[in-house]
Amino acid sequence: MAVVDRTTQRADPSHVHTLAMFSVATIHEALGRTGLMEPRLRPVFRGVRIAGTALTCEVAPGDNSSIHIAGDVAQPGDLLVVTPTSACDDGYFGELLATHMVARGVVAVVIDAGVRDVTDLTNMSFPVWSSAISARGTVKETPGNVQVPIVCAGVAVSPGDIVIADDDGVVVVAREDALDVIVECRVREAKENVHRKLLVSGEGTLDLFGLRQKFLDAGLRDIAD
Amino acid sequence: MAVVDRTTQRADPSHVHTLAMFSVATIHEALGRTGLMEPRLRPVFRGVRIAGTALTCEVAPGDNSSIHIAGDVAQPGDLLVVTPTSACDDGYFGELLATHMVARGVVAVVIDAGVRDVTDLTNMSFPVWSSAISARGTVKETPGNVQVPIVCAGVAVSPGDIVIADDDGVVVVAREDALDVIVECRVREAKENVHRKLLVSGEGTLDLFGLRQKFLDAGLRDIAD
Amino acid sequence: MAVVDRTTQRADPSHVHTLAMFSVATIHEALGRTGLMEPRLRPVFRGVRIAGTALTCEVAPGDNSSIHIAGDVAQPGDLLVVTPTSACDDGYFGELLATHMVARGVVAVVIDAGVRDVTDLTNMSFPVWSSAISARGTVKETPGNVQVPIVCAGVAVSPGDIVIADDDGVVVVAREDALDVIVECRVREAKENVHRKLLVSGEGTLDLFGLRQKFLDAGLRDIAD
Amino acid sequence: MAVVDRTTQRADPSHVHTLAMFSVATIHEALGRTGLMEPRLRPVFRGVRIAGTALTCEVAPGDNSSIHIAGDVAQPGDLLVVTPTSACDDGYFGELLATHMVARGVVAVVIDAGVRDVTDLTNMSFPVWSSAISARGTVKETPGNVQVPIVCAGVAVSPGDIVIADDDGVVVVAREDALDVIVECRVREAKENVHRKLLVSGEGTLDLFGLRQKFLDAGLRDIAD
Amino acid sequence: MAVVDRTTQRADPSHVHTLAMFSVATIHEALGRTGLMEPRLRPVFRGVRIAGTALTCEVAPGDNSSIHIAGDVAQPGDLLVVTPTSACDDGYFGELLATHMVARGVVAVVIDAGVRDVTDLTNMSFPVWSSAISARGTVKETPGNVQVPIVCAGVAVSPGDIVIADDDGVVVVAREDALDVIVECRVREAKENVHRKLLVSGEGTLDLFGLRQKFLDAGLRDIAD
Amino acid sequence: MAVVDRTTQRADPSHVHTLAMFSVATIHEALGRTGLMEPRLRPVFRGVRIAGTALTCEVAPGDNSSIHIAGDVAQPGDLLVVTPTSACDDGYFGELLATHMVARGVVAVVIDAGVRDVTDLTNMSFPVWSSAISARGTVKETPGNVQVPIVCAGVAVSPGDIVIADDDGVVVVAREDALDVIVECRVREAKENVHRKLLVSGEGTLDLFGLRQKFLDAGLRDIAD
Repeated sequence: MAVVDRTTQRADPSHVHTLAMFSVATIHEALGRTGLMEPRLRPVFRGVRIAGTALTCEVAPGDNSSIHIAGDVAQPGDLLVVTPTSACDDGYFGELLATHMVARGVVAVVIDAGVRDVTDLTNMSFPVWSSAISARGTVKETPGNVQVPIVCAGVAVSPGDIVIADDDGVVVVAREDALDVIVECRVREAKENVHRKLLVSGEGTLDLFGLRQKFLDAGLRDIAD
Repeated sequence: MAVVDRTTQRADPSHVHTLAMFSVATIHEALGRTGLMEPRLRPVFRGVRIAGTALTCEVAPGDNSSIHIAGDVAQPGDLLVVTPTSACDDGYFGELLATHMVARGVVAVVIDAGVRDVTDLTNMSFPVWSSAISARGTVKETPGNVQVPIVCAGVAVSPGDIVIADDDGVVVVAREDALDVIVECRVREAKENVHRKLLVSGEGTLDLFGLRQKFLDAGLRDIAD
Repeated sequence: MAVVDRTTQRADPSHVHTLAMFSVATIHEALGRTGLMEPRLRPVFRGVRIAGTALTCEVAPGDNSSIHIAGDVAQPGDLLVVTPTSACDDGYFGELLATHMVARGVVAVVIDAGVRDVTDLTNMSFPVWSSAISARGTVKETPGNVQVPIVCAGVAVSPGDIVIADDDGVVVVAREDALDVIVECRVREAKENVHRKLLVSGEGTLDLFGLRQKFLDAGLRDIAD
Repeated sequence: MAVVDRTTQRADPSHVHTLAMFSVATIHEALGRTGLMEPRLRPVFRGVRIAGTALTCEVAPGDNSSIHIAGDVAQPGDLLVVTPTSACDDGYFGELLATHMVARGVVAVVIDAGVRDVTDLTNMSFPVWSSAISARGTVKETPGNVQVPIVCAGVAVSPGDIVIADDDGVVVVAREDALDVIVECRVREAKENVHRKLLVSGEGTLDLFGLRQKFLDAGLRDIAD
Repeated sequence: MAVVDRTTQRADPSHVHTLAMFSVATIHEALGRTGLMEPRLRPVFRGVRIAGTALTCEVAPGDNSSIHIAGDVAQPGDLLVVTPTSACDDGYFGELLATHMVARGVVAVVIDAGVRDVTDLTNMSFPVWSSAISARGTVKETPGNVQVPIVCAGVAVSPGDIVIADDDGVVVVAREDALDVIVECRVREAKENVHRKLLVSGEGTLDLFGLRQKFLDAGLRDIAD
Repeated sequence: MAVVDRTTQRADPSHVHTLAMFSVATIHEALGRTGLMEPRLRPVFRGVRIAGTALTCEVAPGDNSSIHIAGDVAQPGDLLVVTPTSACDDGYFGELLATHMVARGVVAVVIDAGVRDVTDLTNMSFPVWSSAISARGTVKETPGNVQVPIVCAGVAVSPGDIVIADDDGVVVVAREDALDVIVECRVREAKENVHRKLLVSGEGTLDLFGLRQKFLDAGLRDIAD
């Protein structure tokens, strides 16, 4: 009863590349504090920020069949997003599958489950965000849905959406919202640059953000010497 | 109803600097195995040991107002200790606030909640111990108490106490106990140096610590060939 | 009522050395997907793969007496496996004990509890897999069983079994199964080498593993343009 | 920036009432093993099965503003579904709000967060499924979205969908799928009734479900006396 | 190095009895949303609300020595509060100790660890709040501090403070704050009684609490038909 | 590669029945504080104590094939013990399988995974201890080992061992140790009966267990008025 849909329309590559210039924290703010996956997703190795178009798949517990199907559908620039139909720590993805994904142009993997071969993944510099690390392998018996809308680590993801990941976590931008989000991110970064300079020069955030009177009005009692 | 108290007396800086010479494990032993925060607090990056005087604040879930107030109260040598009034993984603290704290002389942050911009914090070498990493930001609506006694990760902390943190965790020394703890730490380190040499030379811990007969007396049955 | 058994027969060292050539993931597959400890066991530092013969001990909560007894029994090539009789995060093992274990030829520690002095352990390059890091020390009051069959992180371990650990986790091979497992690992590695080359050249896993028709037969619906 | 949408079309009441006749387990099977919320959602008291149309809302951590807005939108037969924008155990919902919801005809509450006044809720027989129980109250500062599509405990829920809950958990049926699911549930129940009688009479499941040969073919080795 | 202090001054019994008339949720609100223990503390059986004066003790992991010392210090009306020095699920307290505590007039137990004999405790109607249930017993080797200030489940508790517990959790009122808290609780209950009647009569909370305009001002967009 | 072994020798039924007279806590003490499963195993309903001979099986994640095989092997008096090869919360066991097990004389189920139909199981009074409740069903694709030695919730269990479960948890007694354990349990119960009477009469545990001087010797400082 599983489905693989090969007709997915990907987000505009220029949107993807532009979003990769902003941190996940900034994009999440620009989205009105939405779209962020649960913090249990952590990078296998640190120091990478990457963006891609969501290649979605659902896997049965202990069974990575859908990842193999996803590999068959993958296009360069895709970022594989994997969610188990019930919670599972097993190692669904390792070095061999990463080799395959690299050959197909997949830029990274986000999985709300376990991965393995993390030494190899690190040496290959293939970026993976996962909720567990486990050598326990999986079987290939039950195909699941590929390229259908899914929920991964608390966020709804549609095929072709834009996924951005860095050391702080993983955020999802709907394909149709990309331009608005980019504009909002630019505004925020510009503002932050001004703030950063003032903070370095010694200015305080209470005054910079106009919080001093606001907090006193809210009942803050200030006990000085 | 929140309070910020600007009259806090800090611990003697020479005590702070001296305590930074001992590991958290040694200080915790010297305290009679007390004062250690729950192990869910982990450093954002490894390899640092630091000590400072506790600048305490309580934050509402998803609201970092008190951290801004704390920045206004901060003095060089302070170490910011943040506890949420209810458990929350959100990213209360990031690069902009770290820039502010550095400008004010704050030496590190200990927070029983989430932080973000961890790549930047690492590049800045600003030490942070937290219970989570999350890009999810917070609002600035509800001021909480600053520089009042708090409970953070299971330990009672008073403003001006000494906080020491390293890769093993975070420990708190009451301002008035500092000298006694330093003396006890020195005794322990001297003893450990002797033990280390004997162990390297091949001596066993059963004999070194006088445990062999003690364990036999406690009923240990030794099955030899 | 505790026992220490000094009569343990160790696995053949050549089996140990050979098994260290395979990844934990491969060995776990070769064992028919058994023998893997729970993924809560993580290395204190990454990048090491090691194998040794199991030197088993049970510790009471907050009491590391048995580890001292184990040190007295240790032989070069042993790998210390520690399980608490009830779950405990305390730091049972640190730099002093590591110094002792190195002097006795113990190659690594696997412990379903906490360790401390992780900076030192890392600098010493002494490999440790643990379920927690905590500066909280332990007492030396109650001896537990040493070199008896135990259950550690969900796996039954007998003294003298072979334990292999890497960045993916920890796996146990019964002494008498070592040869069979080695043969099976070699077969798997040979097969994987062939697969890797084909995947690099662009072949897909659906065809390589004969999954395409199998999944269609299982009801997969393929929606093409 | 929050939205409350009063134009939601509810599912057909006859569909809701019919689905309440089937267990959550049966409906989940009929949905092809989808639509089930994470098992962390547990009933405040046991023994109830109920169905209603989803009245969705998002709450900020420690802030139940949206529940008050939802009460304003509620229609008889609605079932309130609440998801926090970041994980929070606080007691968002208690006896006073339950009294309000009863007055508005809301049949139950499903919330991936904490509730309080559980003694009162039990005495009122107002059914609640929650992920925590906590006396810690919330503030009413920040309105969130009401009657928009949300993700609750891992499942996407649209306003007007049908939610069914019992002692086993909570499942969601899309408004447009209701009839198909009802038909499938009836088929399953009929089959189960036949199976139950045969099992009571002593028949085994290996033969009843045709598993004996299937498992032998899959490599099961049967060791008899 | 442990201490037992027999000089503790208990709170005024009339304050204790009066506070038992209010729910934990109400008291927690009256305290300005402070003083509530972590929600991991749950009642062994439901349906009881009780208050007593804190008889505090610290226990080593897997060792209930301090509880025996506390029994020696207990006075009628005391409520035993137990915190482990490191997290432990073991069953520190069971039917025999409950029999002893009843004989000494102790009214209940709050423990951030495990208990056992829960069938007996339920049949005896001896109220216990714990963070775990486990048959695993403890030893009696290491005395810990009794009747000293402790931190239990995130809250600082001093000997003689007032502890109130019900199905929603456990809250602590400092001895000197009791009268103020009682007054505030009475005000809150009176207000809630008025609200309850209006809610039953069909009034909404948006109007009752003056939230409608506040939320619109905060940016809520109301989409009507 | 799975095995089902029909040659298991069961424990002596008189041993099983006698052990059912003692609490899990008492048996666990009699075993020298061993043999107890992790406290995550909880009864679906309270108030039952039961004993049976272990009918062991391993299940793949999300697959209950082995339970069907176990039903085929079951003999009256067996107690089904199920462990997943990797952690899984799915509902492996429900009302239909319980009906089957009752028909075969199986007395209870212990499973380190999820179960469903808990309302029915309660109404049938069929006792189940599990680590989760979930409506999420499983498939019947991959047979696992039945009647082989397993590790369940941290304890090694061999087919034919005696399993005792009550509201405090689950304990395992090796077939060959049954008589010794029964004798030790009787001694303990006799001693406890004496203690209970003395405690009811007001005697303290410090004197009853000879702890007063022991604790003073261990350094307890007693501060009296």
